Amino acid sequence: MTEPAKRRRGPGRPRQDEAEEGPGTQELIRLAARSEFAARGYDKTSVRGVAKAAGVDPALVHHYFGSKDDLFAAAVEASLEPALVIPDLLGADPDGIGERLARYFLGVWEDPLTRTPLLAVLRSALTHEAAAAVLRRLVLRRLLERVAADLDVPDPTFRAELAASHMVGIAVLRYVVQVEPLASADPEAIIRLVAPTLQRYLTEE
Amino acid sequence: MTEPAKRRRGPGRPRQDEAEEGPGTQELIRLAARSEFAARGYDKTSVRGVAKAAGVDPALVHHYFGSKDDLFAAAVEASLEPALVIPDLLGADPDGIGERLARYFLGVWEDPLTRTPLLAVLRSALTHEAAAAVLRRLVLRRLLERVAADLDVPDPTFRAELAASHMVGIAVLRYVVQVEPLASADPEAIIRLVAPTLQRYLTEE
Repeated sequence: MTEPAKRRRGPGRPRQDEAEEGPGTQELIRLAARSEFAARGYDKTSVRGVAKAAGVDPALVHHYFGSKDDLFAAAVEASLEPALVIPDLLGADPDGIGERLARYFLGVWEDPLTRTPLLAVLRSALTHEAAAAVLRRLVLRRLLERVAADLDVPDPTFRAELAASHMVGIAVLRYVVQVEPLASADPEAIIRLVAPTLQRYLTEE
Repeated sequence: MTEPAKRRRGPGRPRQDEAEEGPGTQELIRLAARSEFAARGYDKTSVRGVAKAAGVDPALVHHYFGSKDDLFAAAVEASLEPALVIPDLLGADPDGIGERLARYFLGVWEDPLTRTPLLAVLRSALTHEAAAAVLRRLVLRRLLERVAADLDVPDPTFRAELAASHMVGIAVLRYVVQVEPLASADPEAIIRLVAPTLQRYLTEE
């Protein structure tokens, strides 16, 4: 990542006008956090490194995001942004929920631009309890509760989690372990078999 | 792990009679490899460390298992041993395949003794390409092909992988990320919903 040097300031607290640069700077830090965690993993990413990548003073990162774990939560949120449209996907025609969800999920994972940060989140959560806690408490809960609110089944959050588990497992075997023939399978072949499963979990008693 | 000191020898090549101790020593090294990789992860485990844990000379480990990756493959095989009965599970009454598989899988993951090494394999595969390659080439392929050979569906290996993906995803969300309510759900509630999915993948066109 190249460093936009002209944005850098000297050490110390951010100047008042800098802290008031508003959502532009905050967004810049958030995207830098996503890139840094994706490229280096949870262990090797630091507040200082993210500040450097964003071209801002570390104090400004602390000001907006607090600790490293808060910064990781922001990075996870940025990485899961594609998932935020899922509640809208579910809201429409109930008969097609399973297929829309399967198609959308595979689309997000097929695109390296969205896949890379998601993979980083998955890796971090599997290897660091702090990262797993962030995923569990902040992001997944919020997303799953929004999805569950729209479902008309018993135990909707549990159902949403079972659907999510299938998609997470497909991501692990297809994109990480890359076991054949799943790794090279036509996305449509996966959608055809998985859509009825998701449909059943999300709509049938 | 305590070290059975009386088994230790000085450095150098194993004595002939030692190399001929046979399956007992080999099994000891394999179990030590499983424990070491489970406790330390792929990165921090060494041939020397496994030798020490097994109370044998490193040369003996090289003699039986070759490189670190070969040793990892042996550890993965030892960790996946519970999975080797799966083909037998599938062979019996076809109507109950989904339920038997879901129940068996959850049983293996509910038991910390079998869960810990499986978690280590999952973590290693997600963070080290060499570990993923071992899982992909040696173990998963062999297991999946045995399962697929017994299935009477189109693309049986693909079907077996979809079933496996669902179970891997449940393991990730229930035992690693520990997202609620899935993490605390009664295994029977999971089996009730997941069994028909596995049944469909493994037996229906």
